Amino acid sequence: MSSDSASISVTTPEHHDTIYLDNAATTPVLEEVFLEMMPYLRIHFGNPSSLHSKGYVAKRAISIARNRVASIIGASGKEIVFTSGGTESNNLAIRGAALGCRAKNPRKSHLITSTIEHESVLEPLRELEKKNGFEVTYLPVSNEGIIDIDTLKESISNSRTALVSIMLVNNEIGTIQPIKEISSIIRLTNKEILFHCDATQGVGKIPISVQDLDTDLVTISSHKINGPKGAGALYIRRGVRIDPLLLGGGQETLLRSGTENVYGIVGFGKACEIALLNLTENECKVSKLRDYIVNKIIKSIPGTRYNGSKIHRIAGNAHFTFSGVNGEALVMKLDEYGIATSTGSACSSKKQKPSHVLKAMGFSYDEITGSLRIGISAENTIQEMDRFVMTLSQVINELRKFSPIAPHL
Amino acid sequence: MSSDSASISVTTPEHHDTIYLDNAATTPVLEEVFLEMMPYLRIHFGNPSSLHSKGYVAKRAISIARNRVASIIGASGKEIVFTSGGTESNNLAIRGAALGCRAKNPRKSHLITSTIEHESVLEPLRELEKKNGFEVTYLPVSNEGIIDIDTLKESISNSRTALVSIMLVNNEIGTIQPIKEISSIIRLTNKEILFHCDATQGVGKIPISVQDLDTDLVTISSHKINGPKGAGALYIRRGVRIDPLLLGGGQETLLRSGTENVYGIVGFGKACEIALLNLTENECKVSKLRDYIVNKIIKSIPGTRYNGSKIHRIAGNAHFTFSGVNGEALVMKLDEYGIATSTGSACSSKKQKPSHVLKAMGFSYDEITGSLRIGISAENTIQEMDRFVMTLSQVINELRKFSPIAPHL
Repeated sequence: MSSDSASISVTTPEHHDTIYLDNAATTPVLEEVFLEMMPYLRIHFGNPSSLHSKGYVAKRAISIARNRVASIIGASGKEIVFTSGGTESNNLAIRGAALGCRAKNPRKSHLITSTIEHESVLEPLRELEKKNGFEVTYLPVSNEGIIDIDTLKESISNSRTALVSIMLVNNEIGTIQPIKEISSIIRLTNKEILFHCDATQGVGKIPISVQDLDTDLVTISSHKINGPKGAGALYIRRGVRIDPLLLGGGQETLLRSGTENVYGIVGFGKACEIALLNLTENECKVSKLRDYIVNKIIKSIPGTRYNGSKIHRIAGNAHFTFSGVNGEALVMKLDEYGIATSTGSACSSKKQKPSHVLKAMGFSYDEITGSLRIGISAENTIQEMDRFVMTLSQVINELRKFSPIAPHL
Repeated sequence: MSSDSASISVTTPEHHDTIYLDNAATTPVLEEVFLEMMPYLRIHFGNPSSLHSKGYVAKRAISIARNRVASIIGASGKEIVFTSGGTESNNLAIRGAALGCRAKNPRKSHLITSTIEHESVLEPLRELEKKNGFEVTYLPVSNEGIIDIDTLKESISNSRTALVSIMLVNNEIGTIQPIKEISSIIRLTNKEILFHCDATQGVGKIPISVQDLDTDLVTISSHKINGPKGAGALYIRRGVRIDPLLLGGGQETLLRSGTENVYGIVGFGKACEIALLNLTENECKVSKLRDYIVNKIIKSIPGTRYNGSKIHRIAGNAHFTFSGVNGEALVMKLDEYGIATSTGSACSSKKQKPSHVLKAMGFSYDEITGSLRIGISAENTIQEMDRFVMTLSQVINELRKFSPIAPHL
């Protein structure tokens, strides 16, 4: 592997010379996934609910995909409900569990989450607080973004807590939460508290077993693991009952009505199969690339802070604060050089409000606005990493020239 | 055009010898739609919320699709919210309007619909009744499936009615409702009653203008008009406010969070563009094919009743009752001969409960179970129609041999 930046080229055809380092926002569909999906658009296009061959073929394809998706978290196919994506899965889990539990037991009106969850967990919780009379505890996190276990212990109420929702991997800073420890604390109390884990950023990146993690509900997304957009799933542990969100024809065993996005689900299944197969190899490759740039950036760019946990972290995530630099300007400038990165979560990058994740970790306003998130995939190359670091260094130098708060370095 | 059944072959490649007559359940993706979608899976795969080129390209594509979808109902792009499909659009419209209206005015707790709506309208309404204290009026229909206007007039309460939801075209019997007349009755009262129209089965089949129909909310689905599954839209008239259903990153101007299904939306837009362009021609072709089989079937198969309205009916729908025949057995037997049809709505065909639509139209249990729905598209040919009628006649004869209630014909 050469680090000679003169000979750098992007080898993957879909990138067209862009160095794509925004893999936490979304990923391209793999060729094998694409090929698996295609027949279901024009040939096997039937409605899975139809009582004829075109319907049966589509139904069978969904069944295969269901088992493939289940396998990536060590679940059974019967425990998988397909949705339109991670956001819908999170909404279904949160609203379905909270409202479902309280309908059975009116005292169950307390919910627990962390301050650094994705907006698709936080927003439904805020609505339950505002409109449905639930009380929500937001657990604080350390400056590395690990949730506070002691506060969790203190917050749980045997009789009142209906649901705990904690993400597996944070989408901005890549921190892995101690899910197993959390579930063992929850299980110490009683069996009537449901535990939801948004595993959107962890599935296909680190080995996951729902038995091991002891979770009741797990959110999975397709487009974060080289599957198509418009497909996601919610794992619902056998025996757990939640209310549905979308009502109608009764698809997905009454838990998610609506004609199934067959080719999307087929692609999602294939993406899971491939991700599981390559998990160890990809994790190893990606963490090497990540460590390579982290070291290089810290050494070559003064005024750099590497954020998040060094140990409990997903391989593909690198997150920096560059003092005296505006993150948005940095992302846009890098884009001019054909490098795709982000300031934080794609979902909130246009809202122009400072990241709630970094705020919860104790970052100052300047530190938040000076942040850059790098999302590396196994499709990236060491040559790309070299070109990226070189360009980053150059762009930061440029931006600092115009910054009133740039450090004297 | 020859009716010589000996020389019959299926010309469209995607059908692979199947005569597909279940176009009300779902349709194949057109080649032009497919080609338009493809780049957005592997090349322009960016997250539309990202602040780099890959994001901008995806965002632009959604904007083009939004205008194309808007055009098919004479709306403005700004009035279109993309969803995962018709079911989600109906759920969003019903819950969003009902709960949104009542939050502003607690007296607004009355909703009006018809007995023959799709389950994705009826189920959310039943839940609002059961769990949220709303009162719902279900308007009866005539034996042709046209809603009772007098009961509508009597049911509307200026102060209490929040929402009226009536479909444009029924999915089982193809009846077109007098939407313009309904909206003029609603508008006679006051401006504070929202009018939702589920136009899933009408869009792309008959000319639609939201100005002309005077509706506030309109549901549109992609996969019923040769677009991909997993995409739909809700038209929300400028100035109308409803509550969102899926919360999170705030996509679709806060009305529908979740990473956009970009290639699905792109395909949906293209399908709308093509459907609008070919609307008159297709309507004419399809109605000729429909009239051809209706006449042929009535003449050649004794004990046949042609159901629904002869005038207020969508071109592609034909619906029959064959006395002494079990509809499910008929669909399965036709499938053995390579002909795809249905007993009624695909969504409910597996629930094994008699069609609520036919029941509302006054059908007896035997009449309901002896029903067959034919959904014709512009891709069907006269040769297919001939082969279908010939096979149908033969299959009905066979089934009647074993039926204890077969007529003496």
